[in-house]
Amino acid sequence: MRIEHVELFYLSMPEVKDIGDGSQDALVIKVCADGLVGWGECEASPLVSIANWICPMSHSVCKPVRDSVIGAKIETPNDIVELGEIVRANGLDIAQTDHTWSGIEIALWDLLGKKLQTPVYRMVGYERAYPKTPYASQLFGDTPAETLEKAKQTLAKGYHAVKFGWGVYGRGTADEDRDHVAAAREGIGKDGILMIDAGTIWRDNVEAAELRADALERHHVYWFEEPFVGEALHAYKTLSTRRPNLPLAGGEGASNFHSARHLIDYGGIRFIQIDTGRIGGIAPAKAVADYAVEKNVTFVNHTFTTHLALSASLTPFAGIESHNICEYPVEASSLAVELTNTRIEPNNGQVGVPDSPGLGVEVNEQTIEKYRVDVQIVVDGRRLF
Amino acid sequence: MRIEHVELFYLSMPEVKDIGDGSQDALVIKVCADGLVGWGECEASPLVSIANWICPMSHSVCKPVRDSVIGAKIETPNDIVELGEIVRANGLDIAQTDHTWSGIEIALWDLLGKKLQTPVYRMVGYERAYPKTPYASQLFGDTPAETLEKAKQTLAKGYHAVKFGWGVYGRGTADEDRDHVAAAREGIGKDGILMIDAGTIWRDNVEAAELRADALERHHVYWFEEPFVGEALHAYKTLSTRRPNLPLAGGEGASNFHSARHLIDYGGIRFIQIDTGRIGGIAPAKAVADYAVEKNVTFVNHTFTTHLALSASLTPFAGIESHNICEYPVEASSLAVELTNTRIEPNNGQVGVPDSPGLGVEVNEQTIEKYRVDVQIVVDGRRLF
Repeated sequence: MRIEHVELFYLSMPEVKDIGDGSQDALVIKVCADGLVGWGECEASPLVSIANWICPMSHSVCKPVRDSVIGAKIETPNDIVELGEIVRANGLDIAQTDHTWSGIEIALWDLLGKKLQTPVYRMVGYERAYPKTPYASQLFGDTPAETLEKAKQTLAKGYHAVKFGWGVYGRGTADEDRDHVAAAREGIGKDGILMIDAGTIWRDNVEAAELRADALERHHVYWFEEPFVGEALHAYKTLSTRRPNLPLAGGEGASNFHSARHLIDYGGIRFIQIDTGRIGGIAPAKAVADYAVEKNVTFVNHTFTTHLALSASLTPFAGIESHNICEYPVEASSLAVELTNTRIEPNNGQVGVPDSPGLGVEVNEQTIEKYRVDVQIVVDGRRLF
Repeated sequence: MRIEHVELFYLSMPEVKDIGDGSQDALVIKVCADGLVGWGECEASPLVSIANWICPMSHSVCKPVRDSVIGAKIETPNDIVELGEIVRANGLDIAQTDHTWSGIEIALWDLLGKKLQTPVYRMVGYERAYPKTPYASQLFGDTPAETLEKAKQTLAKGYHAVKFGWGVYGRGTADEDRDHVAAAREGIGKDGILMIDAGTIWRDNVEAAELRADALERHHVYWFEEPFVGEALHAYKTLSTRRPNLPLAGGEGASNFHSARHLIDYGGIRFIQIDTGRIGGIAPAKAVADYAVEKNVTFVNHTFTTHLALSASLTPFAGIESHNICEYPVEASSLAVELTNTRIEPNNGQVGVPDSPGLGVEVNEQTIEKYRVDVQIVVDGRRLF
């Protein structure tokens, strides 16, 4: 079948707050071919990726994503992989390309899965999908008391793994951060799994990150996530070498297979976290999962938004039984919650990808209408979007 | 002074061809403060970067560049460096951010240089600017005979260094590529400096690149540029290890200091090529130049477009006497040629940054009107651009 039609929907909450909650808007993709519909989602600035979809060509490797996609033939999984290569080559000089392509790639897997009546996890090569232990992913409280309360509530809801991140962490003193970590540990209990996410706050400053290390080790964090920006490989390597008992996690910003690989090869991280909505979709994420297995690093999804994104992000490591922890959004906006009729709810404390054709997630088109942002882009009098 | 006003001008040739000529359009930046004007240029898809300039905030690290820039105080060079950190942090989750910021950063240096009545090369720490040997940067001919003719003409024009790239190279057989390299060598003469640019054609396929290595060594190429995409560090490393007599060059796609550093640290390249219009401007490019000196790697500018871009790209290594070769555009579009009243012409076969305040390049505002593309972006009824 040939890709006939692609729609990009910019959705947004009525108010977007200046907080680390990435579920406040969304770029949802609908792909149509052969009477079938596939859905995907970009983890990207919607307007920037829309511009990237329709921008006029600047030169031979600076082309809009649309030009490579519309009319392309998709019959097999490999066709999606190869189309990704074409999109990346034609968009080499547009930094946004991988973010934009991600949601389209995901929608193509969903579409092809529906066509072939196969779940995507099988199409990428897994025999079966193993359930994962969800960790409740949330923002730090503004005070240690609030963090404690959030952790207690999360435990009460049945989660035994929790991650706190962003918010105040790293913005005050190391002592304040220590108190937050202590509160999180107290709230989730001594047997709970606790992760801390610094949200790249120290860029590449190893000393600032190391000031927090004693407290993190003392409270047995399962991992310490993104002390640095993803490109600061030497900073990751230095900290991972100095603090072998403090496993580092990173990779959510990776916008291609190579960037993720570098964190493993040169950064010394022990958990590689991939967002299929940024890395170029499911195929490059699966390549990272394969590489992680080879290098004895654990693959984890990065998902803070919808259950469409969750299904897409669980797929690349669905069949790896021993990589058994997964990020699970528990503070998503109403937009993100309402986007799908299908919910991937914990079952006996475990979650997994749906066992239905494609990504197995039904999108609620009324939600799209409800939150839709109207966008018009006109270039030299011609309406491009 | 505070940044009062920033204008982004999307310029384009009437027809943009599907060839590797990046001078067919341009995103030119005008920054105003204190009655002064600074000019810069992004090496980016104009429409995508315009969207990145004005897009609505998605969350705390997914903000438009504009929000960090307008009203910011710029009194010293360090203020520009620090504003870059802020822009990058606020735009962490928008891949396009560094491309967009680049032109603004360059314009801020130009503006501050005019304010302080100092050339930018001094503001970044150089006592003097050394002239460089320009290499004529051009596309391969369609046939070896055409490549030969282009090389001869270039020699006749007084250039003793030439680079051929893109076009047919790597798209046919290794024998065809060998004939092009032989023709280029014949045309420039046995004492001429010859570089070959593969334009990332083999992505990360070392074997495909190595098939060309014998011919490149035989014809004594000064460097072999971008056989792979910039992220494929292991491919660069493998080829540089296998072929120690074939110096590799790369880095034009680097959109931050770290990516350039990785090519040096992990890729084994011998020439690091930086485009100030992509890497985030002059400050990160200067940081790469400093790092290159430390690691005994040669810094080279990447410039295929205007003389405004050329001045900005020469500045980061202007004061390094031994890094004495520079890319010089000889096939730029009329748009690129006409953009500046100031021309950086070879003098005794050498070129250098102007010794005037700022970047020392006067922009022709009539050219902007002549080639200007009208852009309207409306989001939920609100005109954002």
